[in-house]
Amino acid sequence: MSFDRLFGAIIEKKNPSVVGLDPAPGTIPPDVVNTFVREAEDPLLGMGEALCEWGERIVDAVHDIVPAIKPQMAYYEAYGWPGLRALAHTVRYARQKGLFVILDGKRNDIGSTMQAYAAAYLGQTEVDGKSVRAFEGDALTVNGYLGTDGIEPLLRACEAFDRGVFVLVKTSNPSSGELQDRDCGGKTVYGAMGELCEKWGAGCAGQYGYSSVGAVVGATYPEQLGELRTALPHTMFLVPGYGAQGGSAADIAGAFDRRGLGAIVNSSRGILCAWKKDEEKGYAAAAREAALRMREDITSVLPPIEC
Amino acid sequence: MSFDRLFGAIIEKKNPSVVGLDPAPGTIPPDVVNTFVREAEDPLLGMGEALCEWGERIVDAVHDIVPAIKPQMAYYEAYGWPGLRALAHTVRYARQKGLFVILDGKRNDIGSTMQAYAAAYLGQTEVDGKSVRAFEGDALTVNGYLGTDGIEPLLRACEAFDRGVFVLVKTSNPSSGELQDRDCGGKTVYGAMGELCEKWGAGCAGQYGYSSVGAVVGATYPEQLGELRTALPHTMFLVPGYGAQGGSAADIAGAFDRRGLGAIVNSSRGILCAWKKDEEKGYAAAAREAALRMREDITSVLPPIEC
Repeated sequence: MSFDRLFGAIIEKKNPSVVGLDPAPGTIPPDVVNTFVREAEDPLLGMGEALCEWGERIVDAVHDIVPAIKPQMAYYEAYGWPGLRALAHTVRYARQKGLFVILDGKRNDIGSTMQAYAAAYLGQTEVDGKSVRAFEGDALTVNGYLGTDGIEPLLRACEAFDRGVFVLVKTSNPSSGELQDRDCGGKTVYGAMGELCEKWGAGCAGQYGYSSVGAVVGATYPEQLGELRTALPHTMFLVPGYGAQGGSAADIAGAFDRRGLGAIVNSSRGILCAWKKDEEKGYAAAAREAALRMREDITSVLPPIEC
Repeated sequence: MSFDRLFGAIIEKKNPSVVGLDPAPGTIPPDVVNTFVREAEDPLLGMGEALCEWGERIVDAVHDIVPAIKPQMAYYEAYGWPGLRALAHTVRYARQKGLFVILDGKRNDIGSTMQAYAAAYLGQTEVDGKSVRAFEGDALTVNGYLGTDGIEPLLRACEAFDRGVFVLVKTSNPSSGELQDRDCGGKTVYGAMGELCEKWGAGCAGQYGYSSVGAVVGATYPEQLGELRTALPHTMFLVPGYGAQGGSAADIAGAFDRRGLGAIVNSSRGILCAWKKDEEKGYAAAAREAALRMREDITSVLPPIEC
């Protein structure tokens, strides 16, 4: 029960970065959307087809460069069930291409309900005596506000299916400190959440020293990144906030250990919207070039990744 | 921007309770599942049909008794996109029957992403110049761990479409205290979250005195329910944990104000699984009887609801 599979892919590609699949409004080129929506009986159905096509082309463009993709579920949910059908398709396609898929859904609930989320995104669902896969992610982002019994069903799924979770600890957004930075008994709320991550992953670190319980820590708070790297030695970090949100390569250096491991850095808009700076190139080719630039930028501040 | 529509329905039906639609494993009678799954090309597609049928029959059975239903999204997501197609169908059907629909998804993210969740569940999505509805809920449960900028897009949707949100404050599960009960500067973490609810709803209380920003507070913590009712005078409470989780009518009395308003109490398993005690009766008739018993039980501890 660890992130060894993901670390293996990071080492193989010498690249601790992940492409965030955020099909936000304006991200998919209008002519791609229009081609599918124009011919559809319903705009959502058409958009679902557009999402499938776009997702395949982005995966094709980056699958040999990055170890992982991170679909942001909100942008698929905004297109209703056809959006979620496209998500399932994209996850399957990416996994067939060898990518590790981090579903960014930030799910959270009481234990009995989290069993259903674990089944949906990490495990399998029983239907009339058959086991089926709903959305087959390799990892899921989650929110630990409800404490241990909301996390335990996920840990069981991680164990059974070799998956991982990333728990929100210190998020990248401007107001993350309102609750997360409060002092609670000599530590911050995010510090307390980080300690829970170490507890939830205790005793199950893999060959690279990290458990299957990771943490989300924003690139926009470099000081806290370094503080948490020291405090949480067995917790892998998923680092959003690089690029469009303002975090630089220098900002994320503290998320990594001395081997250049321990974290994976996400970029979404910087990769997906690269076509807007050179529309002639096409969105997939532009995404590929941006992913290569990101790899170069991030690895430039790290020790050589070799294990 | 308030919960006036929901209060209107509560007063009309003299019933501050909500039926939680939690199609957890074993909840839908096996013969209903089997009928649909047996004939389907794919188990998930069959289960989607079963969920539609079951949801319609439950709504038919309770729509004249309760003001609202609360689908628990996790249980629909566990059945993949066909489950979410069934959710959209059930929401539409319930709203046509006059029910207020609280989507229990506990969503949370940074501001730009929350815009997508707001579009998906409370507002509308733009597709190629057209505005469409993905899942048309009346309210959404959310997690405020990320602070104000993760909540603001929801407030804009509440304003534009007359919707509401319920923010997790003190949850009903056994380990809710691990983070939520910690002392942070003279108040608990849940107390700090409650204060944020009052801040987010400030200045927009409706005719019953409550804003469109509600709070989730568990029936399993009656002392905190009363404490929060006093501390958060403009914040409506959604109260889970009654019934199967252990909360009694006496436990939830403190969630209400002197007019018998200010809260709505959820029961899921107690309603949906009532058929297991009398299989002859059928699941819909058993749910109706259980919903009537719940109304009687809850109103027995409240002042007469009249405004």
